[in-house]
Amino acid sequence: MGSMPELRKDPVIGRWVIISTDRGKRPSDYASVKEEKIEGFSPFAPGYEEMTPPEIFAIRPTNTQPNTPGWTLRVVPNKYPALKIEGQLNRRGEGIYDMMNGVGAHEVVIETPEPSKNLSELEVAAIQDVFRVFKDRILDLKKDIRLKYVMIFKNQGLAAGATLSHSHSQIIATPIIPKRVLEEIDGSKVYYNLKERCIFCDIIRQEMRDNIRIVYDEEHFVAIEPYAARFPFETWILPKEHFSHFETSDENRLRHLAITTKTVLSKLDIALQSPPYNFVLHSAPVQDQSMAHYHWHIEIMPKLQKIAGFEWGTGFHINPTSPEAAARYLKEIVI
Amino acid sequence: MGSMPELRKDPVIGRWVIISTDRGKRPSDYASVKEEKIEGFSPFAPGYEEMTPPEIFAIRPTNTQPNTPGWTLRVVPNKYPALKIEGQLNRRGEGIYDMMNGVGAHEVVIETPEPSKNLSELEVAAIQDVFRVFKDRILDLKKDIRLKYVMIFKNQGLAAGATLSHSHSQIIATPIIPKRVLEEIDGSKVYYNLKERCIFCDIIRQEMRDNIRIVYDEEHFVAIEPYAARFPFETWILPKEHFSHFETSDENRLRHLAITTKTVLSKLDIALQSPPYNFVLHSAPVQDQSMAHYHWHIEIMPKLQKIAGFEWGTGFHINPTSPEAAARYLKEIVI
Repeated sequence: MGSMPELRKDPVIGRWVIISTDRGKRPSDYASVKEEKIEGFSPFAPGYEEMTPPEIFAIRPTNTQPNTPGWTLRVVPNKYPALKIEGQLNRRGEGIYDMMNGVGAHEVVIETPEPSKNLSELEVAAIQDVFRVFKDRILDLKKDIRLKYVMIFKNQGLAAGATLSHSHSQIIATPIIPKRVLEEIDGSKVYYNLKERCIFCDIIRQEMRDNIRIVYDEEHFVAIEPYAARFPFETWILPKEHFSHFETSDENRLRHLAITTKTVLSKLDIALQSPPYNFVLHSAPVQDQSMAHYHWHIEIMPKLQKIAGFEWGTGFHINPTSPEAAARYLKEIVI
Repeated sequence: MGSMPELRKDPVIGRWVIISTDRGKRPSDYASVKEEKIEGFSPFAPGYEEMTPPEIFAIRPTNTQPNTPGWTLRVVPNKYPALKIEGQLNRRGEGIYDMMNGVGAHEVVIETPEPSKNLSELEVAAIQDVFRVFKDRILDLKKDIRLKYVMIFKNQGLAAGATLSHSHSQIIATPIIPKRVLEEIDGSKVYYNLKERCIFCDIIRQEMRDNIRIVYDEEHFVAIEPYAARFPFETWILPKEHFSHFETSDENRLRHLAITTKTVLSKLDIALQSPPYNFVLHSAPVQDQSMAHYHWHIEIMPKLQKIAGFEWGTGFHINPTSPEAAARYLKEIVI
């Protein structure tokens, strides 16, 4: 017979998921998902700096020139940008439709000079550098008041959408606030209006008390499997204190975030044999003031299954691994 | 330099997409996406009827017994159902979280006895049978008033999430209305309140007039590339007359829908070398009365690229092929 599936609702945006553990549940069930290594030389490697557009920023010794080797981290414009920084927005209609020019920024953060090292394998200080650069890029991009949102994300592995295996993140600054972000902000606002409390703070409080979905817990951050996880081993990292904007993080918090991220990614690497994953920073719109109802966080989604029509058509997910089972497993792994 | 990317807004649900045609545009750019054939025997083939749960419905000669060969179409419960029909919903809270039992139905429509034939390769009459069965299953499932929505979708090919290559669709009846469906209904309601017209009827009217995104046009149906297409060659089929519920379609309209679907899928097969795709029926919630603001339709999404973190984190898509270019290409293909 098997157990009764559960329908669970994401408390922030109201998305229902099916937790249907009859369909396969343990980490070993996913172990056959082997990542094909992306072959070939890396255009992000030292010595090939001319293969990328000129660098926007780099961490490099003062005795080295821009766009030459010696760096430990580089930020460059995306060679094939989805949005372009020049031009006017020119919002306009086409009959019943609405459009504007694709004004924005699209940058790449090359996280390490070593083509074969994953983010999880970097030293804590190097991961802290990555997060500091995210912060600095946001602070720089928000000076352009046309840009309403800065999306920061990372695709690790071919199955997660990476086209280069050399570890990197992407930054896309847009003149609109993406729908998914608006849903989170609106959802948390509704809760705040009712309770006068941040829903994410309440989630953290309940998770700390229940202690059944916690993956890692330290001074400033907690990593949990969310109650209504869409994907097996989906993991969120949240700051314990309330902040709506990631870019307000101080150096000490960036260090703790680096420790937490390294720990969580290492646990996922061990549990799931270095799975492909997507990593997305969720933060408040950059032109907005600090919000009492919104709470920045990171969502990590291992890519263990194909996304099928069911999910696409409906925004509705079937998760074959309960977040409690995933948390139990990840928590036990000692890094 | 290349052309300026465009940001376009879906008029119904307000989702912005980037149409960034610098990144690769022609159908031949996708031709390298080759579908691995799923090997092995088919548990859906005639002679193996005992490998599925007993049939709910079949089209078969009157001189054959249920669960024996002779059928041309079979509906069976999913062997690994995401939801189960027995039990109480038992809606309840867990602290700030909300959940209910996973009560519902999960069925499989085996569209043909031939394991290697795709839906597009079936005769029009056989495709009409498939649509008639969708209608009949909805009419049957809606008698259970716990079930608020019936999702019907099809995953063609491994990359689109199919686990068996034998052509089939899935039916999932849920006690909740999925978020994506609610967004469409709410979005079209806002428009109706403003204009007293169905937004989908207005879309059809504008598309017929502009004639730049039409793929196929016949008496009762029109197939278009939507203005804010998320994916290259995303194609929607809409009835020209206003109906909110698919299950109200009469036999003549089902025949025209079969003709339109066969034509559109065949065009995609030729343009993109039989791509994997997801096919999702969007229809109004089954317990609701006819709605003046909502308009049922089918969304077909060829699976030509990996879904990356950008899309997941934000609900925001980058489409490298403009819908106008895709429509021009598909329209020219003679079936």
